[in-house]
Amino acid sequence: MGVTASLPEHRAVGAPIEPVVRRDEDALHVLAALVARDLEVCNRAIVARMDSPVALIPQLAAHIVAAGGKRLRPLLTLAAARLCGYAGTRHTDLAACVEFIHTATLLHDDVVDESELRRGLASANAVFGNKASVLVGDFLFARAFQLMVADGSLKVLAVLSQAAATIAEGEVLQLVTQHDLSTTEDRYLEVIQGKTAALFAAACQVGAIVADRPEVEEAALASFGSNLGIAFQLVDDALDYAADQAILGKTVGDDFREGKITLPVLAAYQAGDAADQAFWQRTIEHSEQVPADLDHAMSLMTRHGAIATTLSRAARFAGAAKAALGVFPDSSIRRALIDVADYTVSRAR
Amino acid sequence: MGVTASLPEHRAVGAPIEPVVRRDEDALHVLAALVARDLEVCNRAIVARMDSPVALIPQLAAHIVAAGGKRLRPLLTLAAARLCGYAGTRHTDLAACVEFIHTATLLHDDVVDESELRRGLASANAVFGNKASVLVGDFLFARAFQLMVADGSLKVLAVLSQAAATIAEGEVLQLVTQHDLSTTEDRYLEVIQGKTAALFAAACQVGAIVADRPEVEEAALASFGSNLGIAFQLVDDALDYAADQAILGKTVGDDFREGKITLPVLAAYQAGDAADQAFWQRTIEHSEQVPADLDHAMSLMTRHGAIATTLSRAARFAGAAKAALGVFPDSSIRRALIDVADYTVSRAR
Repeated sequence: MGVTASLPEHRAVGAPIEPVVRRDEDALHVLAALVARDLEVCNRAIVARMDSPVALIPQLAAHIVAAGGKRLRPLLTLAAARLCGYAGTRHTDLAACVEFIHTATLLHDDVVDESELRRGLASANAVFGNKASVLVGDFLFARAFQLMVADGSLKVLAVLSQAAATIAEGEVLQLVTQHDLSTTEDRYLEVIQGKTAALFAAACQVGAIVADRPEVEEAALASFGSNLGIAFQLVDDALDYAADQAILGKTVGDDFREGKITLPVLAAYQAGDAADQAFWQRTIEHSEQVPADLDHAMSLMTRHGAIATTLSRAARFAGAAKAALGVFPDSSIRRALIDVADYTVSRAR
Repeated sequence: MGVTASLPEHRAVGAPIEPVVRRDEDALHVLAALVARDLEVCNRAIVARMDSPVALIPQLAAHIVAAGGKRLRPLLTLAAARLCGYAGTRHTDLAACVEFIHTATLLHDDVVDESELRRGLASANAVFGNKASVLVGDFLFARAFQLMVADGSLKVLAVLSQAAATIAEGEVLQLVTQHDLSTTEDRYLEVIQGKTAALFAAACQVGAIVADRPEVEEAALASFGSNLGIAFQLVDDALDYAADQAILGKTVGDDFREGKITLPVLAAYQAGDAADQAFWQRTIEHSEQVPADLDHAMSLMTRHGAIATTLSRAARFAGAAKAALGVFPDSSIRRALIDVADYTVSRAR
């Protein structure tokens, strides 16, 4: 019942409707519409598989999983499988695995970051406590592996267990670089490669694996995902200093208050004069902050073009993501993925 | 190079020495000596596989993994494989997986419990912080799955991913029952079945799986592990109110201060009069404690035989563990496992 990317104009009754891709539309919605049925099956799998006789587990998981979110990573798995012409049914459960791994890391991140907001709502740790968030994260992680085992592909298991290890390494590296203004841009890219891009890459690669496509397509999808993930995180890091809180769905200035080393900070720090650098040292390295500091940080970033620098790096990675799709023939799904790469950067403008 | 349980008296030079099993010796040391070479290979695998370019990961992991501990769970995997006559080399890496899963849960437990001591040393979270402990736990968990994938058995993956999910469920259930004196003994047993016995069972079962033994032996080893795990946890819970801190290697009274519902508390609460029950409600349900309360709690347990009740339950589960080994013929390794079951209970006396 899979739908290929090149459906004829006149379809049988009951086949999914493919919307016309319009570049001015929200690219994510277009992509979601192209795989709407798969996404629905995946969403049902997510809800069904996070169940447990221990009621707090689905309660807490529902707070973060079922409450929405962009479902960006599972969407990538579904879209990649479709791009590869996959016509089976394995991809929806594997997309759910990807979302579970992501959700587990979110739960643990929020504990680590002591966040109070997630997607505009109170974060799970704020509602249910840190302890439950750590343990339910562990449960979702284990459940993801159970689903992969049920799928039965050692190759998928290898890709996603490697991604899970890389995510943890990226998160630890981020912890180590926290407050450290001597962090290089390369080191920062290593952090986001681990904490964000690894799962984007694996999510896409899994689509090629289930479709049993040649190595070159698998590598192309992994490269698309990895570059897209880096672009996505760069923009997220820019938005943490530039966005409207209501749009961002998280607290603006979180990264600043946590002393997180992101490219906007590094760019502003490196371009600053002695007084600017002293400001960053006090606020980021020594965590001595007063409420007015965030505004000053943002004004320094504007003065030194730090947000523009970050977004320009993001655009370069988005470009690499799009280029990686060159091995695939043109199709509505390929165009939608390209639009998602553009949207990843344009959402900040 | 595997050594069977029934080595002849005169061995070739270089074959491992099997010590005579003496019941008055520390049963764990005897078991460890029987699989000494495998344990050495396993220990090397543990150190080698917890490595990462992110230096904090092996540093923190070494603090908890390499610093020692009883290695009880990997020892069970090695011994079970030996009991099944396994002569290959897969069991040592899988035993390392078991230890990694255990270590990951310890790291997260200590964060959840806000523990300051682990095995008599400062806990990882006390030294490295909660954040690093959460993330390195995640890394070790992911790394365990990478090792299992490298081993390539979907059956092993199924057993250990199921165990990991069950552990998390048990831990969440423990969190839910915390401070709740209306918890039943059955519910408490559910908690320890999840948080402790599931991994003991899986550790043993994996030994039968690698040896490709029939279902009945696999089930027998799972049953041995499960019952042993429950006995082990019951005794641990008794020791939390009865042990010498230097022997226990953790802070006596931790469970009391955390309002953890364990069998000693339930037994003393249920046997107590109105004044006793008011004491338990104040200290456990409402967490209102003064320093003298722990001594009073311990005296109430003595008066009502709560520790004896707990140890007698433990002895019953240890008996079931030993009975499960009935499907295997007599051998030095079987005798050593039986002694471990006895020791699990006798260490509290």
